[in-house]
Amino acid sequence: MTPTPGTTLSDAEYRPAIHFSPRIGFMNDPNGLVHDGTQWHLYYQFDPFAPYAGRVHWGHATSPDLYHWQDQPVAIDQTPAGEAFSGSAVMDAHNTSGLFPEGTGGLVALYTRAAPDRQSQYLAWSTDSGLTFTEYAQNPVLDLQLSSFRDPQVFFHAPTQRWIMCVALSRDHQIAFFGSSNLLQWTELSRFGPSGMTGVDYECPNLLEVPIEGGKTAWVLFVSINPGAPQGGSATQYFVGTFDGTRFVPESDTTEFVDFAKDFYALQFFTNVPSGNPVSIGWLNNWQYCQETPANSWRGVMSLPRRVSLAPDTTQRLKLIQRPEDLTPLRGTAADATPPSRMDAGSSWETPLPASAAHEVRMSVEIDAQPAGLPPGDKGRSGRFVLNFLNSNEETLSIGFDAFTAQLWLDRGKLKGFSHPFFTNSFSAALTPDQRKITLHIVLDKCSVEVFVNNGQQTGSALLFPATPLDRLRLSATGAGATLSHFELFPLKQTVRAEEGQI
Amino acid sequence: MTPTPGTTLSDAEYRPAIHFSPRIGFMNDPNGLVHDGTQWHLYYQFDPFAPYAGRVHWGHATSPDLYHWQDQPVAIDQTPAGEAFSGSAVMDAHNTSGLFPEGTGGLVALYTRAAPDRQSQYLAWSTDSGLTFTEYAQNPVLDLQLSSFRDPQVFFHAPTQRWIMCVALSRDHQIAFFGSSNLLQWTELSRFGPSGMTGVDYECPNLLEVPIEGGKTAWVLFVSINPGAPQGGSATQYFVGTFDGTRFVPESDTTEFVDFAKDFYALQFFTNVPSGNPVSIGWLNNWQYCQETPANSWRGVMSLPRRVSLAPDTTQRLKLIQRPEDLTPLRGTAADATPPSRMDAGSSWETPLPASAAHEVRMSVEIDAQPAGLPPGDKGRSGRFVLNFLNSNEETLSIGFDAFTAQLWLDRGKLKGFSHPFFTNSFSAALTPDQRKITLHIVLDKCSVEVFVNNGQQTGSALLFPATPLDRLRLSATGAGATLSHFELFPLKQTVRAEEGQI
Repeated sequence: MTPTPGTTLSDAEYRPAIHFSPRIGFMNDPNGLVHDGTQWHLYYQFDPFAPYAGRVHWGHATSPDLYHWQDQPVAIDQTPAGEAFSGSAVMDAHNTSGLFPEGTGGLVALYTRAAPDRQSQYLAWSTDSGLTFTEYAQNPVLDLQLSSFRDPQVFFHAPTQRWIMCVALSRDHQIAFFGSSNLLQWTELSRFGPSGMTGVDYECPNLLEVPIEGGKTAWVLFVSINPGAPQGGSATQYFVGTFDGTRFVPESDTTEFVDFAKDFYALQFFTNVPSGNPVSIGWLNNWQYCQETPANSWRGVMSLPRRVSLAPDTTQRLKLIQRPEDLTPLRGTAADATPPSRMDAGSSWETPLPASAAHEVRMSVEIDAQPAGLPPGDKGRSGRFVLNFLNSNEETLSIGFDAFTAQLWLDRGKLKGFSHPFFTNSFSAALTPDQRKITLHIVLDKCSVEVFVNNGQQTGSALLFPATPLDRLRLSATGAGATLSHFELFPLKQTVRAEEGQI
Repeated sequence: MTPTPGTTLSDAEYRPAIHFSPRIGFMNDPNGLVHDGTQWHLYYQFDPFAPYAGRVHWGHATSPDLYHWQDQPVAIDQTPAGEAFSGSAVMDAHNTSGLFPEGTGGLVALYTRAAPDRQSQYLAWSTDSGLTFTEYAQNPVLDLQLSSFRDPQVFFHAPTQRWIMCVALSRDHQIAFFGSSNLLQWTELSRFGPSGMTGVDYECPNLLEVPIEGGKTAWVLFVSINPGAPQGGSATQYFVGTFDGTRFVPESDTTEFVDFAKDFYALQFFTNVPSGNPVSIGWLNNWQYCQETPANSWRGVMSLPRRVSLAPDTTQRLKLIQRPEDLTPLRGTAADATPPSRMDAGSSWETPLPASAAHEVRMSVEIDAQPAGLPPGDKGRSGRFVLNFLNSNEETLSIGFDAFTAQLWLDRGKLKGFSHPFFTNSFSAALTPDQRKITLHIVLDKCSVEVFVNNGQQTGSALLFPATPLDRLRLSATGAGATLSHFELFPLKQTVRAEEGQI
């Protein structure tokens, strides 16, 4: 079956306003996420020549605030030694590498050079705040003579005063940990895995210490898998545990996924974050269809920057909490749209979306308890609250809460711009059992939606391809009444290439 | 949003011909699967009064061959002590329980009585080969004073000469193991979990020794979860390891799911199997929509009986192999339909399905290698082979192989009889990397399809609701040519209530 693109919007009309996307070409994993003391750097897997994966360079953008991104020249090229695959960047402030002039330091990137039969870890450093990099003459800095060994993440572990590298032995489903005093010589410390869901390949490990809400911290190891994620293709899972500078030990044999939908991959965290919780960015896509989504000139979108923490769930297991970096500076005037605070079963309310490329919705709603003594099969047994973004082309994006089973859905199946056998229509999440109240924080931005549920306890990220822009919002209560305690709808101001207008 | 049933076929037209379904009412988990020396028993969770979950009894059917099922009267009733939730049945041939007349033995059922605030394990025995059961006077035989403690599976462990019970501490995400010499007094031996993916509840554990193809055996623990499975709602995962009569120890910290789609739950194995590999049956459904699928009088379908073994994958990890119980006795005359052995890219071939309620397809196909030196983005980069079941109502069920990424899809999204936000349209599986050859064994039976890939290495099970019967089969090669080495299409004879015709 040939994928049927159908009637689609133009490249420009799908381009997000507050999510980073490449001007041209193909973008996948975020790389080298680092704050250099002045600004945020987003490097990324980049084919500058065509909107398809291949000929991988490190693209580059910088930002003062994680939303306003400035395009920068390609930072690391494909070379005869191979493509520049994923990796990380650290501030070598104290010149542990000895690569910088005495008394200075700077950004160091560690990444995989991928030749057809060899993947090894390379180092490059920058003396101009990350704009250009010089490759280390004795590269590779780490080579196990393997064809499947990639995506180094490096961070400084203060208690043991050394650099730690996490890197994927992809086909073996292991994460190897190495230590170094100078970023140049690496000694293996331990391995983790196979663990959780393995898929075909492990990729893009990220290990970091994450604050637990209310105090303390735990270590979290993120491992992306592709293909073979349970919803198909690529996805990122995580393990919570301890790290003593040598070995990561999970606190249980369970695994969890970062996202309940299927378009969030290769999550990476910024190093050298000045303040606040850890900040992550993921690639809003899935390898199953990322090269076939509607486009002529560019493909690839990064997620919103997300602040991450941990909190215990009702069974006292620590789960990931994700919330978007503060959006209030991006907000325009709140829409003058006030739904009724009380919505009876069968009622709905609708409002136009304010004119803007991107929109933010925040709301809290409690669904009535299931009436007692219903006859079996009475449809009163389902009490659902639904938020739709829709248009006059009979397209609708549906986000719904099935209150009596405490499950949420995200359904993009009634959008008409893209059809593909791997482009799954709907996703769902199990929320806290017996909890009929839900809070939703939704960001809709052209070809993307991100749904943060119950203050970040669950997150769903999905690409969207409406054939016509979604321009209305509807709330509906079905099967049971609902009480809204909070509702806000904001237009969000364009931040990516805003000075150029929407291109 | 109210689920939109659309135009649907009648209850009778969705009723499978070779899969067991209840004559009326609602059926979920298989229970008490046992061979009594003469015939196979299928008990099942059953509301005889309405096609909705509730008022749970044990329904019952018997079969000489796992395909021809004879309805039997309800075997275990709901009582004032609670509903008769899931459980198992064993042959107490040597009267270890002392419940049978001296020198005789018989079937013993162990199951959960579920009151609103208490779930405990009950025992009942049968002196008429499983038709009727007498509840033990000192029930419960196992009560931990818990509200979430259910689904006992019992088997005899020969090396330690005792009965073993596996039972779910559902909300705690643990499986507890108990031992007994007489089925009446139970002593806790160990616990397993939390492990793998937990969802909200663990349910329906099954532990058994499974042969490894080529010799030896390993123990496999199956744990169903609901809700919160990664594709939404309910699903069954498994762990491979060892069991010494006291403790199950997994051989790794990984988890795998039994099915790559989302309609296979509460898998249970037969006890006392006369010969051959272990035999399982699962419930072909998902708790997210099982009470809302198109029906007026009945809901619920069991999977095909499946013979199960283990085999190492390319990374030497043991994976589950599932193959349907021998279907050859059900076959009618093979369709006189021979696709070309060579199909060029862009070509397709079509044949009517032979007149029959159910159909079986077996085929092997190898997709051409990706041409070298293609320009990026050339659609030659995807080589796909697609099998469609379709009709003149523009409905199609699509099963496709994306050869260059070695992934399979199963897409029911273009059938028009049922739409529901949780009724996910498509599913996929990652197959052996770099393997461009695939074998498919497909059974299409009215409202169900089961796809066995590469001789049982992957299995996908899905409910289907076409608005009009699917009556044609089409093969297509897209992006790359394909060579068919094998193709067979059989009508399958009705086996369930065949004497009554299709009711």
